[in-house]
Amino acid sequence: MARINSHYLKLTAGYLFPEIARRVAAFGREHPDARLLRLGIGDVTRPLPPAVVEALHRGVEEMGHAETFKGYGPEQGYAFLRELIAEHDYRARGVEMSPDEIFVSDGSKCDCGNVQEIFDERARVAVADPVYPVYVDTNVMAGRTGPADGKGRYGGIVYMPCAESAGFLPEPPREPVDLVYLCFPNNPTGAVASREVLARWVDYAKKNDAILLFDAAYEAYISDPAVPHSIYEVDGAREVAIEFRSFSKTAGFTGTRCAFLVVPRELTGKDVGGSRHSIHALWSRRHSTKFNGVAYPIQAGAAAVYSAAGKAQVHELITYYMENARRIREGLSAAGYSVFGGVNAPYIWFKTPAGTTSWEFFDRLLQKAHVVGTPGSGFGPSGEGYLRLSAFGERANVEEAVERIRTRL
Amino acid sequence: MARINSHYLKLTAGYLFPEIARRVAAFGREHPDARLLRLGIGDVTRPLPPAVVEALHRGVEEMGHAETFKGYGPEQGYAFLRELIAEHDYRARGVEMSPDEIFVSDGSKCDCGNVQEIFDERARVAVADPVYPVYVDTNVMAGRTGPADGKGRYGGIVYMPCAESAGFLPEPPREPVDLVYLCFPNNPTGAVASREVLARWVDYAKKNDAILLFDAAYEAYISDPAVPHSIYEVDGAREVAIEFRSFSKTAGFTGTRCAFLVVPRELTGKDVGGSRHSIHALWSRRHSTKFNGVAYPIQAGAAAVYSAAGKAQVHELITYYMENARRIREGLSAAGYSVFGGVNAPYIWFKTPAGTTSWEFFDRLLQKAHVVGTPGSGFGPSGEGYLRLSAFGERANVEEAVERIRTRL
Repeated sequence: MARINSHYLKLTAGYLFPEIARRVAAFGREHPDARLLRLGIGDVTRPLPPAVVEALHRGVEEMGHAETFKGYGPEQGYAFLRELIAEHDYRARGVEMSPDEIFVSDGSKCDCGNVQEIFDERARVAVADPVYPVYVDTNVMAGRTGPADGKGRYGGIVYMPCAESAGFLPEPPREPVDLVYLCFPNNPTGAVASREVLARWVDYAKKNDAILLFDAAYEAYISDPAVPHSIYEVDGAREVAIEFRSFSKTAGFTGTRCAFLVVPRELTGKDVGGSRHSIHALWSRRHSTKFNGVAYPIQAGAAAVYSAAGKAQVHELITYYMENARRIREGLSAAGYSVFGGVNAPYIWFKTPAGTTSWEFFDRLLQKAHVVGTPGSGFGPSGEGYLRLSAFGERANVEEAVERIRTRL
Repeated sequence: MARINSHYLKLTAGYLFPEIARRVAAFGREHPDARLLRLGIGDVTRPLPPAVVEALHRGVEEMGHAETFKGYGPEQGYAFLRELIAEHDYRARGVEMSPDEIFVSDGSKCDCGNVQEIFDERARVAVADPVYPVYVDTNVMAGRTGPADGKGRYGGIVYMPCAESAGFLPEPPREPVDLVYLCFPNNPTGAVASREVLARWVDYAKKNDAILLFDAAYEAYISDPAVPHSIYEVDGAREVAIEFRSFSKTAGFTGTRCAFLVVPRELTGKDVGGSRHSIHALWSRRHSTKFNGVAYPIQAGAAAVYSAAGKAQVHELITYYMENARRIREGLSAAGYSVFGGVNAPYIWFKTPAGTTSWEFFDRLLQKAHVVGTPGSGFGPSGEGYLRLSAFGERANVEEAVERIRTRL
């Protein structure tokens, strides 16, 4: 009798973004002529940088000729790309990194979802609240939680509320946990962690023999030179942290698919008998057994991000989106909203009017302004009473969205 | 205390292909001048079909312009590709199929490895022996097995030996199982299953409320018109089977990465309380939570496989490899080996000389003929005493490999 994984039945509603898509589609059917402005899902809109397009074409061309054709590549990614990453993303910032500690993948969503597999099924997991839903949902699927309560909190997960008064930064949990998911620059609040804050987390992890799962997918949006881009900029982090990075938001790869996971050699975990094992070896085994590498042309395209032209073009992309962020931030502030984020992150997090829930305000924004945001409560109970807007989008649309919010609500 | 997934510690040695790579690398260091001929790993060598290359270029170009740029696509794949698959791979063969039953992915290895997640952690798994190692290893990692015995057989897995006397076809297990992995055309033996054989499996699955996980990655190599390409060519299979398909071996996509999983709407599994749930809904949830779709240009390239030019070019590719298969088959037979497969599959499965183990013969082939094969025992204990050669490769290399085996061993 084929029995299903019953843990899936604990998952509440749909994954956040499909639920938004459902409401937007229903609105579209009722108002076929409405011109929707989408600042909901954090998806880039600007074309790929020319240096990347050129490299992709070159990669494709190589696949069309016998002399340069590539079959299976190394599951961990081609050395040419891993070396560029180690050099430009790490050593250039004074961080020790070997290319073989980098695992190229087809997305941070996949990496964030898959990483839990190499840990014990009873591992205790801490997440910030609000939080990117994939961290939680994949642990629910793996059976590490009980059912959800009325607020959407799963039993067994340790939630770390991020209060406005604390700058939306989570406090280390008081009870012992095994895995801590952290995301800076934060999705959805846009908060960043200073070196001191990160050092406290590394210290916490060492004292509690915990592992930090550090999602740095938005590091390219940091404008403050004092803010670390990588957890490894903090001493000792190599012994306690895995880091997620992505080309999605950096170089416009959401539809092109390339990311990487960093697993330092120093990182270890215990087996049931208390012996220590290399996390790098475990991930390596997982990665090479269940994944076959990223398409060669895509890796060639990602490598071009590190060329002089690529870097300049990526900088231009990010400047464009961050000018959007500035306009949203200032527009909403001028309209009287309490606004956060949008300085070192492409997300603007703002308070809904008193007495209005996140989904109510989402619906109001959709119905009155034809603007799609993301309800804060979709990221966890502490997100209730907030809405997230994304700075990704074309300038004219962003300006119009701000104008509509100011005048129609 | 971060505890690891201790089930990983049960995994024996490395995954087969990394172990081969290790021995080949060691040989290369000792014999730097030897010209190795690689017929081991089943990796294509011919360039991508021109129609695919052209479509990839077009897809890349679209990503470089604001008007045609694509961000996140649907996780399940673009409708244009899913519709082509449903039409050409299924309806054209008289099989009912809706595009929304098709989930486009970046590889069958990933799909084969991930599919077990939606089933109960105590699900009983049956596999053929010999077998593609990913089916077993991913169930070991998920904790569905005990440790391996001296022959590499994991406790809890039901092995179905494939004897030469039975045409290398597995017999349905006598004990009840929940999931049965089947692969036709078979990797590694090259055996195919007739419609009658598949009908018996569908019947078995219905009687035992089991689900068939049908790996058809090599269906394009079937030359006998009577052999089904899909399990769904058998009546009733939609209620009991999931099917894996790939562009890797069909259109040379091993380095380009595109595949798909088929989950019919009729398929159900039971929860602990005995209620039935849609497997399609579970997989859909898994796929959209842990995966972000295949790169747009790659999907555009895969779609070109179904164009008139693409079909003709793919046919040419397959004809080329199958002519290799014929030469290997006939060459080895002429040299006195007992040879199987290579008619409806790109794999040739042959007996090692009496008293020689698979790894011994692998080493002898490497040392004397500088030819890389794959030891049959790497696919399971019943593969002991066999070696697999792959028909992928350039014609001149295949001819030389056959010549060396004939003359140097």
